[in-house]
Amino acid sequence: MGGDHAPGPEVEGAVAAVRERIAKVVLVGDEARLREALRKLDAPKDVAVRHASEVITMEDHPAHAAKSKKDSSMRVAFELAKRGEVDAVVSAGNSGAMMACGLFVMKRLHGVDRPGIVTTFPTRGGVCALIDMGANVECRPQTLAQFAVLGSVYARALHKKPRPRVGVLSNGEEAMKGTELTRNAHRLLAQNVEKDFEYVGYVEGRDIFGGDVDVVVTDGFTGNVVLKTSEGASQVLFELIREEIMRTAGGKLGALLLRGAFRRLKRTLDVDEYGGAPLIGVDGVAILCHGRANAKALKNGIRVAAEFAEDSLVASVSAAIAKHAALWPTDAAQASGS
Amino acid sequence: MGGDHAPGPEVEGAVAAVRERIAKVVLVGDEARLREALRKLDAPKDVAVRHASEVITMEDHPAHAAKSKKDSSMRVAFELAKRGEVDAVVSAGNSGAMMACGLFVMKRLHGVDRPGIVTTFPTRGGVCALIDMGANVECRPQTLAQFAVLGSVYARALHKKPRPRVGVLSNGEEAMKGTELTRNAHRLLAQNVEKDFEYVGYVEGRDIFGGDVDVVVTDGFTGNVVLKTSEGASQVLFELIREEIMRTAGGKLGALLLRGAFRRLKRTLDVDEYGGAPLIGVDGVAILCHGRANAKALKNGIRVAAEFAEDSLVASVSAAIAKHAALWPTDAAQASGS
Repeated sequence: MGGDHAPGPEVEGAVAAVRERIAKVVLVGDEARLREALRKLDAPKDVAVRHASEVITMEDHPAHAAKSKKDSSMRVAFELAKRGEVDAVVSAGNSGAMMACGLFVMKRLHGVDRPGIVTTFPTRGGVCALIDMGANVECRPQTLAQFAVLGSVYARALHKKPRPRVGVLSNGEEAMKGTELTRNAHRLLAQNVEKDFEYVGYVEGRDIFGGDVDVVVTDGFTGNVVLKTSEGASQVLFELIREEIMRTAGGKLGALLLRGAFRRLKRTLDVDEYGGAPLIGVDGVAILCHGRANAKALKNGIRVAAEFAEDSLVASVSAAIAKHAALWPTDAAQASGS
Repeated sequence: MGGDHAPGPEVEGAVAAVRERIAKVVLVGDEARLREALRKLDAPKDVAVRHASEVITMEDHPAHAAKSKKDSSMRVAFELAKRGEVDAVVSAGNSGAMMACGLFVMKRLHGVDRPGIVTTFPTRGGVCALIDMGANVECRPQTLAQFAVLGSVYARALHKKPRPRVGVLSNGEEAMKGTELTRNAHRLLAQNVEKDFEYVGYVEGRDIFGGDVDVVVTDGFTGNVVLKTSEGASQVLFELIREEIMRTAGGKLGALLLRGAFRRLKRTLDVDEYGGAPLIGVDGVAILCHGRANAKALKNGIRVAAEFAEDSLVASVSAAIAKHAALWPTDAAQASGS
């Protein structure tokens, strides 16, 4: 119920997922509104509805709302997952509250410092995963080191890359660059420990799109800035192209001839195709869709959620965190000063 | 001598600037190589050369090199400016060393916490300045508050915007978002103090390109990531467009008809037209060009340097810092705990 246009796209996406036999769906929220939306779509009878009386809004303080709004659609959905009544949660609501519900209800997996949210960028010839896209504004070095592990589990599972190349986002490639945080994270990841991924060191903003790195690790503040900067840069570029094209008759004819090319391109760049951003590191499957996500994006979010539940992504994350534990200090070791 | 292709583009840009009567130029560096490059261009006799035996490379540690390489072309150029033998320095060398030379040789202007480097982005219908693009990786809240003042002096002088709209880059528009640094900077800038600019609060990555903000303030780490992310996103978008267009015969014909539009667009987006990034807050004029800058970019860098020297930008910065001093705590006030 907390998406920008809820519950319209949510219900439509869910109905499409059920019709395409992607998953069974339980809609959580205002029962009257959900039933009405289902009726309008002439939905199959087996789309379940679970009433929740409250809504976490985009303006709510994430942690506070996740704690206090106990009957909010988001919180109730997470409770259903915790009790095993559903296998995954999909939401287009408040991303911070999603993180908070993950922490408070699903709980962190053993050994995980902070869960992270992964997003996917189109690149030269493929895709690149970025973690964290906004959940953790202030990070510790071990958080970033773990993001490398979490991101590579995701890249293996969703992008089918058996040994992902992982880099830490910095303001230059040389090891002396970066902040204290990135330098310490780099030191942890560069350790001579057997890894399920290839650590490539520092990468820069432009490398995200270059095709030479599969997972880019950064704190949630920088990750959010990267996501929105690239959205803004692409959008203004498209608008400038359109303006220039429409200035002349020849341009208009050219544009007509290029319609197919632009349509294919739009599909390549369409974030709705990627099916949302998973919250990784919690004991459950939770997929975050954009607040403005349309029905297609929500359906694809449900598809990814179903895949993750079927592939036991949570077990893979647990195993990967345990396997790479030598990369980061345990909090006990830190406390004793070693 | 420290640019990626030095001294070729530097000499060519300088000669063009002299021929177009933009400025008189002193080339600083290896005298034999500079004289040879001048001879090849059949340059006017009045392009001066000042020998310097060392070069600060891109791999050098900025502060260390700026201090120890006393006869480097960059350091010597800054010394010439300090002694008043030249009015401005233009370089395509190591940006960190440029910052360090600014600090050690030109020195900070009275009241300035840290100088910043400004860069310009094309936007919907205009341009937007971003400060800092990489000189200051770790910033204090008062540094960002001062960047708002420095950036608006620049936007007034170079972008001809009488009352720039200034925002602090964050991961959301709500005041509770951001890091401790951005929240404290926001608190300083939101004070009810008369300003020469309009403080608009937090802005997000996509707002840089939206046309509703004239100056975006951020730390040098994030600024550098923003700059390189937008370069990377635009470049991959252009490549995807080209690929899609070339797939079909109709597309190729369309591309032919659109040649003019793409050429005009390239000019709009051409960073070489913007003439480099000034280091603001030091007692002198210093313009940083991209390491890969071509002759045109260097000529435009010289043009901006000449404008700044003629318009007494340094005096404007001094006056603006003094005028807005109520925005930030003085270090003395901080030390006494007030």
